[in-house]
Amino acid sequence: MAARTHKIHVPATTANVGPGFDVCGIALSLSLTLTNLLTRVALYVLRSHGISSFPSGVTIHAHNQIPFGRGLGSSGAAVIAGVLLGDLLGNLNLPKSRLLDFALMVERHPDNVTAALIGGFVGSYLRELSPEDMSAASIPLAEVLPEYPPDAGPDWGQDPPKAPSGIGHFVRFGWAKEIKAIAVMPRFELATAKARGVLPETYSRKDMVFNLQRLAVLTTALARSPPDPELIYEAMKDRIHQLYRMALIPGLPEILSSLTYTSHPGLLGICLSGAGPTILALATGNFEVIAAEIQRIFKEHGVEVDWEVLEVNERGSWVEEVTAAAAAA
Amino acid sequence: MAARTHKIHVPATTANVGPGFDVCGIALSLSLTLTNLLTRVALYVLRSHGISSFPSGVTIHAHNQIPFGRGLGSSGAAVIAGVLLGDLLGNLNLPKSRLLDFALMVERHPDNVTAALIGGFVGSYLRELSPEDMSAASIPLAEVLPEYPPDAGPDWGQDPPKAPSGIGHFVRFGWAKEIKAIAVMPRFELATAKARGVLPETYSRKDMVFNLQRLAVLTTALARSPPDPELIYEAMKDRIHQLYRMALIPGLPEILSSLTYTSHPGLLGICLSGAGPTILALATGNFEVIAAEIQRIFKEHGVEVDWEVLEVNERGSWVEEVTAAAAAA
Repeated sequence: MAARTHKIHVPATTANVGPGFDVCGIALSLSLTLTNLLTRVALYVLRSHGISSFPSGVTIHAHNQIPFGRGLGSSGAAVIAGVLLGDLLGNLNLPKSRLLDFALMVERHPDNVTAALIGGFVGSYLRELSPEDMSAASIPLAEVLPEYPPDAGPDWGQDPPKAPSGIGHFVRFGWAKEIKAIAVMPRFELATAKARGVLPETYSRKDMVFNLQRLAVLTTALARSPPDPELIYEAMKDRIHQLYRMALIPGLPEILSSLTYTSHPGLLGICLSGAGPTILALATGNFEVIAAEIQRIFKEHGVEVDWEVLEVNERGSWVEEVTAAAAAA
Repeated sequence: MAARTHKIHVPATTANVGPGFDVCGIALSLSLTLTNLLTRVALYVLRSHGISSFPSGVTIHAHNQIPFGRGLGSSGAAVIAGVLLGDLLGNLNLPKSRLLDFALMVERHPDNVTAALIGGFVGSYLRELSPEDMSAASIPLAEVLPEYPPDAGPDWGQDPPKAPSGIGHFVRFGWAKEIKAIAVMPRFELATAKARGVLPETYSRKDMVFNLQRLAVLTTALARSPPDPELIYEAMKDRIHQLYRMALIPGLPEILSSLTYTSHPGLLGICLSGAGPTILALATGNFEVIAAEIQRIFKEHGVEVDWEVLEVNERGSWVEEVTAAAAAA
């Protein structure tokens, strides 16, 4: 049997995008990681289809551009890569909507995983499920992806929890092609669980309406060409998570308040990327100046950073079949 | 001097549109009312420009299709009509963005007034204002529009509170032309203040995210042709206001749960129109069947209704100059 060689491409993603907490994600031009999470997710997909383990003779190489724990969707990318790996190894040919179901069984926040799978600028909701489906979708992660003990036999961990169909629905928004994403990445990790732990359980109606109003405008405003900085700058403000994460990210308050579309022409808006600590600035020009100013403020607070100007990844995740010659090269 | 004759056209509007509480509005094919509020708003606009009273010889005729207190934007329409009347009488030629500022000084919820002014399906946010502007924009309505005493002289009520510039920003979403709005209007009035009074002051993060996720998807999904009923039906669900208003609108829970896109092909989604009691159903066909079913459920709860199938008003508000011949006809 001829060896099959494939590459699984999964982009980095930025989530929230200002007001779109747990809603919006953008796929970016940085790609894939490979982690233990990936192989566990792949096994989950295989076992959900009655295949008990990886086929023999599989070798997995990892090439990763996505930094861990910075708010650029590294774990969402691992989940999507795992789903695609399971689909590939099991010859399942699942449609994207079904791949998303498996991803959402593992990662219940749809923003990063949907953008990583679909590509572009995406918004999603989790559907209200029927009572039976609901109980499947609220199973703890430890049961969906149990730790695989070293002495596990072939019968271990069979019959995993069923993934209901159509857990999440999404739309892909338009994206004005002149907008690029500047990612300014502090050289420290911030665990999503920790960044989520500082959020309140309840919100005032006023703060909620603040975000709803901006979110509605933002998703359409970023599709219009040329983009309107005055409209977008204010539409990227948030009162759901950024305020509460200020203590975790030195310099954040100053960064959010001191760079504007008037002080830095070309800038459209600034927000946290996901749960941070990466800062996402959307801009149509002056990328280096904007990045350097954010870097300067971080440095004043003792934080070293790396930064990149990223394109939006329009393709999303895909599996490339590599010819023997190319694979050997 | 030749008499000038004008008609001011202002559409009815539906607000919220499911998850878009205080955000989204749609202008509908029913038009203008004339109320005392209208003339007070017109006076406010005139006085903001140093004109103390109505010019003499002005006659105002009213023609109204918008029912009062049903959630179809009758007071928002009156505010916009007043702003346009003031602009017309004072020969001010204010741009739409400035007309909106005056409207938002009177009505601080942007959803109905923006849709009535601009037309179509619109989302808006109130901007974060500078401290000075903020104080102007938080002046109580009674100071913006004081009651006009019968014995008021020409100097009474001069120098009204200044309207800051750019109070609200908006975008106009796309709208798939095959979607029509069925408005089922119970024959009782529900004051917005009463319907707002039953809402909680705080919301769980879960309910907030529920609406944010749906709102992001809905604004783009309604622009796609052909519209996807499965995507839209769930995206029109709400957890911010409809639940709390169920006790005020007999039959509402059953209406929201029993008509679906599978039970009624052509139906896209159902929600309260504004604060209710009107039910808004968006659909691409089967309009009469859908309306009749909602009517039937209302009737079981002792509520009589009228219903209409409305187009989206794409033009918004406008001022028509009427020729002498047409005016006399």
